[in-house]
Amino acid sequence: MRIRPFNEQAAEQADRHSDHLTKPPGSLGKLERIARQAAGITGELWPDLSRKAVIVMAADHGVCEEGVSAFPQEVTGQMVFNFLSGGAAVNVLSRHSGADVFCVDIGVKSDLEHPALITRKVRYGTGNIAKGPAMERDELMQALAAGINLVDELYAQGYRLFATGEMGIGNTTPSAAIVSVLAGLAPEQSVGRGTGINEQSWRTKVGVVKRAIEVNAPDAGDPYDVLSKLGGLEIAGLAGVIIGAAANGCPAVIDGYISSAAALAAMRMTERVYPYMIASHLSQEQGHAKLLELMGLTPVIHMDMRLGEGTGAVLCFPIIDAAIKLMREMATFDGAGISRE
Amino acid sequence: MRIRPFNEQAAEQADRHSDHLTKPPGSLGKLERIARQAAGITGELWPDLSRKAVIVMAADHGVCEEGVSAFPQEVTGQMVFNFLSGGAAVNVLSRHSGADVFCVDIGVKSDLEHPALITRKVRYGTGNIAKGPAMERDELMQALAAGINLVDELYAQGYRLFATGEMGIGNTTPSAAIVSVLAGLAPEQSVGRGTGINEQSWRTKVGVVKRAIEVNAPDAGDPYDVLSKLGGLEIAGLAGVIIGAAANGCPAVIDGYISSAAALAAMRMTERVYPYMIASHLSQEQGHAKLLELMGLTPVIHMDMRLGEGTGAVLCFPIIDAAIKLMREMATFDGAGISRE
Repeated sequence: MRIRPFNEQAAEQADRHSDHLTKPPGSLGKLERIARQAAGITGELWPDLSRKAVIVMAADHGVCEEGVSAFPQEVTGQMVFNFLSGGAAVNVLSRHSGADVFCVDIGVKSDLEHPALITRKVRYGTGNIAKGPAMERDELMQALAAGINLVDELYAQGYRLFATGEMGIGNTTPSAAIVSVLAGLAPEQSVGRGTGINEQSWRTKVGVVKRAIEVNAPDAGDPYDVLSKLGGLEIAGLAGVIIGAAANGCPAVIDGYISSAAALAAMRMTERVYPYMIASHLSQEQGHAKLLELMGLTPVIHMDMRLGEGTGAVLCFPIIDAAIKLMREMATFDGAGISRE
Repeated sequence: MRIRPFNEQAAEQADRHSDHLTKPPGSLGKLERIARQAAGITGELWPDLSRKAVIVMAADHGVCEEGVSAFPQEVTGQMVFNFLSGGAAVNVLSRHSGADVFCVDIGVKSDLEHPALITRKVRYGTGNIAKGPAMERDELMQALAAGINLVDELYAQGYRLFATGEMGIGNTTPSAAIVSVLAGLAPEQSVGRGTGINEQSWRTKVGVVKRAIEVNAPDAGDPYDVLSKLGGLEIAGLAGVIIGAAANGCPAVIDGYISSAAALAAMRMTERVYPYMIASHLSQEQGHAKLLELMGLTPVIHMDMRLGEGTGAVLCFPIIDAAIKLMREMATFDGAGISRE
């Protein structure tokens, strides 16, 4: 698998085109930066990214035994059915944005059956990382491959823009552990309140992350070691999605904290994915701002969201569409007969 | 003209409904706040705001004589034709968002003719505020009425969501002057770089704003006095649009700095417009952040834009639509059979 380097020439051409459009240079802010990035990724001045997919990877986490989440673990599987019947936030936002939702069971603890479910179950949830590794290394490779292969299939069907989404009760805990090890943040910085825990539970969660790192002693220089030891299966799957999008020359729109942990791991596996990533939103989850800064990514929107599922990424789709349409449809100064100084 | 008070009961009902949806309470952040506001404005749990209008008011400014803008003054009229032929950024974003653009000549210096132009010309540009008043008080009242009446007409045609847009070379100067007087900001804080001026021109602009305030000595307690003395015609027209939207029970989506100056003036004319306003984006224009804070408004998006025309407001339309669709279409915990703690 090869990832093309970012096409600087196409990006510069986009900048030049943008400067001829009827607006002061740079006045469209992030919209101009998105258009530039899309050109550099695809090699086209205004690529057609109209076929959009959000891949929602679902998995369970053995670490739930430690009481790290406000919700019971069976909610992971219940939410999968909610995605499949179109009632979750990510479904509503996807219909609104003209995107399709692909829900993948990559490691839910129970057996799930539904005609629209994509089953790529690597194992029935991860091990409890406070006591041992999340998964075997070959299981990690299976999860990564599942993400890469799914993007390949969707690309073949015509999809050109990919968003990362996830569902997994307890998954802010492995995310925080991964971020602590790979980005060097103290657990007190990387651990947030997830979907809503109190001060006491937050302290518990910080302790669990510390123990997970101590017990597993992952090699910070080896992202495969870190992901296999700290989990989770959906995080590994999403790292695969990001690598797959880049390998297919498509932007990968990164959702919130958990997706960003996957993106960080993907970047450590191969630096070349970096220019293919668009950080969609700044989550309310503590540590996300610092993580994005360390990764050199600027979030497009700041909506105070903390839901996951890919909701922030999908909410960015209309903005990405808008950035490309501006390039394609705006008049130029010369064309419109407008004076410049 | 009457403005209904915000319907707190409907807003609370929206909050309660939101807490039953399949997501942790509050996890959709600003989307939940927008849905709440839309309910309180309209009295409906998920109002139909699909008919959307952006009103782009265009006018010229006598203060251009002082060299406050990077663009020549004839660009105002040239851009009006760009709006009318669909080539400006606000046109592209409006087509993208399902909104219609209404371009109003409320005070362009030259005579403009076009079948789609809405002509409500109050006068041929304002006077140079560095030397005297922008307009007479009865001209201000005409401009305000033009905005109010246009919204009334559009409401009768079925429009339910209104965005403010403007075009007027030099109009960040009167905006800064208005903000200085009404919000009590020093010109050094209220004056920004507009569409792109250098340090030297910025100093000139600060001096011009100081002189405009000194020469005209507006009464800070009388927003009509402030607007008539400092201008401009499009700012007055937009204050009318905001008041008109509120009077018709519709949200007014405020664009950037100039629109926010209009919103501030409208608020001082009648406090009741406040809950009807949605601040769309945080402009790159210096002073905008401080102004919104003083007005108690939180911008929805942060896109580093500084173009005006209503572009930031229109870019928010899909987000407002999304907020309402989430209320209408998401499954509830009970409906989807999902466990809560």
